[in-house]
Amino acid sequence: MATEIERKFLVSGDFSKEVYSSQRIVQGYICSQPGRTVRIRIRGEEGYLTIKGPSDEKGLSRYEFEQQISLTDAEQLLCLCEPGAIDKIRHLVHVGKHVWEVDVFYGANEGLIVAEVELVSEDESFEKPAWLGEEVTGDRRYYNSMLTKNPYTQWDND
Amino acid sequence: MATEIERKFLVSGDFSKEVYSSQRIVQGYICSQPGRTVRIRIRGEEGYLTIKGPSDEKGLSRYEFEQQISLTDAEQLLCLCEPGAIDKIRHLVHVGKHVWEVDVFYGANEGLIVAEVELVSEDESFEKPAWLGEEVTGDRRYYNSMLTKNPYTQWDND
Repeated sequence: MATEIERKFLVSGDFSKEVYSSQRIVQGYICSQPGRTVRIRIRGEEGYLTIKGPSDEKGLSRYEFEQQISLTDAEQLLCLCEPGAIDKIRHLVHVGKHVWEVDVFYGANEGLIVAEVELVSEDESFEKPAWLGEEVTGDRRYYNSMLTKNPYTQWDND
Repeated sequence: MATEIERKFLVSGDFSKEVYSSQRIVQGYICSQPGRTVRIRIRGEEGYLTIKGPSDEKGLSRYEFEQQISLTDAEQLLCLCEPGAIDKIRHLVHVGKHVWEVDVFYGANEGLIVAEVELVSEDESFEKPAWLGEEVTGDRRYYNSMLTKNPYTQWDND
């Protein structure tokens, strides 16, 4: 068990020169309610099962349980998931002392790029790269579990 | 992964003389929908996470994924579960070639006793012990996930 502290931003510039690793991720949700989500993920050739609890009031930290499962189990469990699997490529980028995860979405969420950094405490400082856009920490529309139900290409982008 | 084939009966007689093992089980559901349930169980000193898929039309067989987890993880995950944890003692009884699981419920399901036998195929024969009552295979009211939402003591037992 762990509590996850993350800050999330849109990406408004070119981060590609700083990428040191990239991996395709396909994931779905066995259930996705505000208080708890059960996620099945295939990352490269590995399967994972992750259960997340409710967010705190600021949307910063969240209980998380994660266990690796076989690729076969992950493929079968993906078939049980709610409709609307997430398909994205996760790029890892070093910025200062931190590693940023930059997710470029495809399919129903094409056009969305989100960057996340994990912190050890809520007040830990971090360097903001030039390509960062608006902060969206705690904005439930950007939760991957919400993007399965209400994908980015269907948003009213006024 | 496995597909579970089970038949379930009420218990109307005394099975206690044939019990060879008994263990307390406390379990809750991270989610419980007709098509998929995610169950957290503590059995004795062991934790388990189980995901079940939809039942077939006869209510006999069901996809099941189960993984052991630490007792600490199980205790924390139980806190995330929907209200209405199941508390029961599971007794194991040999009858002919099969082992029956006889669940005696407590708390909000006090008074309910259910016996289940697992089969390798839907047409496998099995010996019916004298203490077996009405068959309830496929009756969703007796699913443990339903007993959390609509416990036995609240049924209209006309």
